[in-house]
Amino acid sequence: MTVEALELSINLVWVMLGAILVFFMHAGFAMVEAGFTRSKNAINILMKNVLTISIGGIVYFLAGYAIMFGDTAGGFIGTSGFALQGVDDIALFVFQAMFAATCATIISGAVAERANISAYIAIVVIMTLFIYPVVGHWVWQGDGWLTALGFIDFAGSTVVHLTGAVGALVAAAMIGPRLGKYAGKQINVIPGHSIPLGALGVFILWLGWFGFNGASTLAADPELVPSVIANTFLSASAGIVATAFYTKFRYGQMDGSLTLNGALAGLVGITAGAANLSLVGAIITGLLAGVILVEGVRFIEWKLKVDDPVGAVAVHGLCGIWGTLAVGLFDVAGGGGLLYGGGATLLGVQAIGVLAVIAWTAVTVALSLSMIKLFVPLRVTREEEIEGLDIAEHGSHAYEFQQDVFRGLSGKSDTFAQRLTTLGTHVKEKQV
Amino acid sequence: MTVEALELSINLVWVMLGAILVFFMHAGFAMVEAGFTRSKNAINILMKNVLTISIGGIVYFLAGYAIMFGDTAGGFIGTSGFALQGVDDIALFVFQAMFAATCATIISGAVAERANISAYIAIVVIMTLFIYPVVGHWVWQGDGWLTALGFIDFAGSTVVHLTGAVGALVAAAMIGPRLGKYAGKQINVIPGHSIPLGALGVFILWLGWFGFNGASTLAADPELVPSVIANTFLSASAGIVATAFYTKFRYGQMDGSLTLNGALAGLVGITAGAANLSLVGAIITGLLAGVILVEGVRFIEWKLKVDDPVGAVAVHGLCGIWGTLAVGLFDVAGGGGLLYGGGATLLGVQAIGVLAVIAWTAVTVALSLSMIKLFVPLRVTREEEIEGLDIAEHGSHAYEFQQDVFRGLSGKSDTFAQRLTTLGTHVKEKQV
Amino acid sequence: MTVEALELSINLVWVMLGAILVFFMHAGFAMVEAGFTRSKNAINILMKNVLTISIGGIVYFLAGYAIMFGDTAGGFIGTSGFALQGVDDIALFVFQAMFAATCATIISGAVAERANISAYIAIVVIMTLFIYPVVGHWVWQGDGWLTALGFIDFAGSTVVHLTGAVGALVAAAMIGPRLGKYAGKQINVIPGHSIPLGALGVFILWLGWFGFNGASTLAADPELVPSVIANTFLSASAGIVATAFYTKFRYGQMDGSLTLNGALAGLVGITAGAANLSLVGAIITGLLAGVILVEGVRFIEWKLKVDDPVGAVAVHGLCGIWGTLAVGLFDVAGGGGLLYGGGATLLGVQAIGVLAVIAWTAVTVALSLSMIKLFVPLRVTREEEIEGLDIAEHGSHAYEFQQDVFRGLSGKSDTFAQRLTTLGTHVKEKQV
Repeated sequence: MTVEALELSINLVWVMLGAILVFFMHAGFAMVEAGFTRSKNAINILMKNVLTISIGGIVYFLAGYAIMFGDTAGGFIGTSGFALQGVDDIALFVFQAMFAATCATIISGAVAERANISAYIAIVVIMTLFIYPVVGHWVWQGDGWLTALGFIDFAGSTVVHLTGAVGALVAAAMIGPRLGKYAGKQINVIPGHSIPLGALGVFILWLGWFGFNGASTLAADPELVPSVIANTFLSASAGIVATAFYTKFRYGQMDGSLTLNGALAGLVGITAGAANLSLVGAIITGLLAGVILVEGVRFIEWKLKVDDPVGAVAVHGLCGIWGTLAVGLFDVAGGGGLLYGGGATLLGVQAIGVLAVIAWTAVTVALSLSMIKLFVPLRVTREEEIEGLDIAEHGSHAYEFQQDVFRGLSGKSDTFAQRLTTLGTHVKEKQV
Repeated sequence: MTVEALELSINLVWVMLGAILVFFMHAGFAMVEAGFTRSKNAINILMKNVLTISIGGIVYFLAGYAIMFGDTAGGFIGTSGFALQGVDDIALFVFQAMFAATCATIISGAVAERANISAYIAIVVIMTLFIYPVVGHWVWQGDGWLTALGFIDFAGSTVVHLTGAVGALVAAAMIGPRLGKYAGKQINVIPGHSIPLGALGVFILWLGWFGFNGASTLAADPELVPSVIANTFLSASAGIVATAFYTKFRYGQMDGSLTLNGALAGLVGITAGAANLSLVGAIITGLLAGVILVEGVRFIEWKLKVDDPVGAVAVHGLCGIWGTLAVGLFDVAGGGGLLYGGGATLLGVQAIGVLAVIAWTAVTVALSLSMIKLFVPLRVTREEEIEGLDIAEHGSHAYEFQQDVFRGLSGKSDTFAQRLTTLGTHVKEKQV
Repeated sequence: MTVEALELSINLVWVMLGAILVFFMHAGFAMVEAGFTRSKNAINILMKNVLTISIGGIVYFLAGYAIMFGDTAGGFIGTSGFALQGVDDIALFVFQAMFAATCATIISGAVAERANISAYIAIVVIMTLFIYPVVGHWVWQGDGWLTALGFIDFAGSTVVHLTGAVGALVAAAMIGPRLGKYAGKQINVIPGHSIPLGALGVFILWLGWFGFNGASTLAADPELVPSVIANTFLSASAGIVATAFYTKFRYGQMDGSLTLNGALAGLVGITAGAANLSLVGAIITGLLAGVILVEGVRFIEWKLKVDDPVGAVAVHGLCGIWGTLAVGLFDVAGGGGLLYGGGATLLGVQAIGVLAVIAWTAVTVALSLSMIKLFVPLRVTREEEIEGLDIAEHGSHAYEFQQDVFRGLSGKSDTFAQRLTTLGTHVKEKQV
């Protein structure tokens, strides 16, 4: 075997490891979104997550990859490689397919507990087929117009996270808040059903992010990779620390859900600059991301009055913007950071990229949802929402304790409970 | 360091990563099987899973590996390398030990909620010591009789999954259904206690499968590995999509548990042909696996009247057969696929392999269980089953909410609840 | 690219994979500790775990790494490389930062359900800043006094696990037992709230340990790595088997929680000798670790009367000592094992290392906690402990079923339940 072949092998292993880790982020999203919403909608949100990665993967294979990485039409859109015809780099396809689905799944959290699953599937198809690949083409294909401007987004604070978050914001606004979220002047907290599940999801996302950022080098570069991994680790850590202490300062107690989200804030924040920032720059980026998260969640919920059950817009959107701009401030690898004497040019380019992606995604998602609405309703009925989407859309409960047999324990007569009793379940004390 | 040494290193890293991922599949099996069964049996099923990987690992070290990869006796069985004496490739042992335990643990799901744990341990020993290694010898040792015929099973649709599933079917049939599953003409659904736990398990299994199939190349081949990973990803995705839409079509709603199992159906389906099929072939294989799963679960439960709580026989058995035959239809790498002009020879060989493994496993598992039965009962008593295996076999509950203190909340007097109250637990309102 | 550069790349990939896996162990610790304690303290223990890895990471970056790996002052302490100034090997920093946090997080389990979070954060800072790095310097920096003696601790049975466990023991003793644990002569079992969560944590820890031990080679050595991985796998397996059968023998039933901990016992046990023991030596080490665990838990709880909710002192401390001494008995790689004709010298050195680390850690942790106590109380108030730390320290519940709306189901009137009812939750039957 030649040295060149070995180099291919080692880079392959690194990128495949990255792809596998990013795949696992979908388990993280599923657990975070299930844990931070109510038990009556748990199956539904899990279904939305598994359908996102699977439909997203197939759609990205059929056309998304071509639109993203195909030969450019004017720096705006790819035009070749549909169904990977003529594409050699299958490893890159796999790695990028996981990213495409990541972008799309951000929406699922923001519209949780009330979006119609058919409408959700439709928007996932459009996101992974077209809206996200176009943004990706602008930045990562090589001939994109944002690349030409000098826009830097190493692993996707803007390309993946902001795109997903703008989609999430538009969708959540168009679909409207959950019943009971806003009652006159009162804004109700609707707590999630399992913080441990949410915490597990955060750990899994953090794990996966080492692949998301680390393998975006696309090579097992012994200089670059350790910096990227260290930046990712330290920014996430700083995000947690900032959120824990800032919520303590702001609300008098360290908030559990926000602190867990603080890790994600730091991770989204460092995604654009993981290959460009110093370790200290990464820590500063993470610290500020944590504060932005806390105030952002409040702003979106209290001022914009958009109901985002898992804080997806603040985490992926506001911290995505911050991370992209942070490159303009702290870039040391390319020397373009304002604070490292690089002037304001890079910062300006970063801002242009952010604005362009916001505009593109907001318009296309709004149009898409308006069209989808002609065929299927965007949200479930009031009755279905009250009953819970698990029963309404999937005909079953996520948990045993929701089953009638358990309700039966609190004194209500119930034929299902009676029946199960005779079948020998653990409510045998009722037989006596 | 030489290029040859580096090649060993890079292949080692890939295979070790694979082994670690396949190890983690046991967490996936544990979560799937715990989530899809009742809470009163959760500790028991978790114990069965941790005992499978640990006992299986030690038994495979002592003798299983030798019987599988030792010098052949007539293409039928290995005869050397007990306790790895004279074996150089420790990495291969580790990788294969995880596979052996995977095969055995498939049984645990099918006999969940009623199998005696001692009998279960006995069958795990026999599976990892003898039954599975013999099948593995036929196909993967190099001198096996099925290898000689030209049988193709890249990562084990038949070797691992069908072998495990036939064991599962025979065991579930011999042990009999759970109390209350079949009541006269009525067939009752006994729902699992936590779909989120099951969903987490599915994601973990899918993750692990990238190692299961990906590292079955045994080398970090930059041509082959990306295809294998992409096939694995796309087939699983297709399995989910097919199951979601087929259950919608068949039952009017997208079924949660079946759709989650659809990922596993696609994964089992692509395991035989991951290195031989095109990406489109993988998608077709996954789509059909999803449909086979839905109809297979129904067939086994309604026609065969075998009670398989987690659908293990349909997932690993029927989809294992399908995946093995699919190589005969779609093989493009070897050119033997019927649909690629390769004629029916390969398809015939694949069918012979399937039949041989079914016959071998059915007979040996049935004989083994008959012998085990002479020493320990195969299932727990009726009283133990009603009470739950956690209390009966392990003396404790899996969850706090099952403890008496919680039952106490619904009005029953309970001394344990009283005692805990004085100990300062959260039922402090009872003190008032 | 040169062969030397490729060697750097492949070793990098292996060490980064290891670091990522060790990172994930923190998810394992979080799940184990949450699962094996009560639901009213779940958010708190999750917070302690995410704060440990994040604060620990930043502190280790700022100073811990320098104190551990900096130029030595007399073989006792490092003195250079603060904030990684002048440090080239960022990959090693990342890998070691995960270890430092692992050491610290061992304490969180032992003081769970009653430690004040501010006091806990303070001890995490001191552990990762100073106490652990000094021990690490003695053994792993190269010029440490224990290295000079010939002390062998490959991946940290003593350096990481014993250090953490001594801290845990001292902290748990100083903070005192949970309310209700010791009531006169009676010693109460306070069961955890979710064994499946704990089991998941054990699987994740086991997974991560393949990186913990495997990448402690710091190179993708095709000879050494497979042995290390196989030893790790077999010792953990033996730990499970021993614990399952020993609890069956000792208590009449296979205990679920102890058997799960048996995996960790085997893993801690093999950590010191993973590169030095034979496969049979690893199995023996794991078997004995399982028995030590069962008796150790009993000894600490019944004789020492220290309340350690998750058994951290037995797992990491007693099995850490055992593993370190086991190298003195079974070392075959270095030929120093007593049972392999190496005499008692190595065993003596191992014992010296164990005693030195116990003395150092016990004294420094006791002093640290005494100082922390001057600023913040070490434990929460009696009222906060009864209410649960989730409400007391974080203002929210971990689970939906703890929310008033669910208590309302058992008949108590509750304004929050009323309010949620009007908001359209799943207690809609109350509207009727």
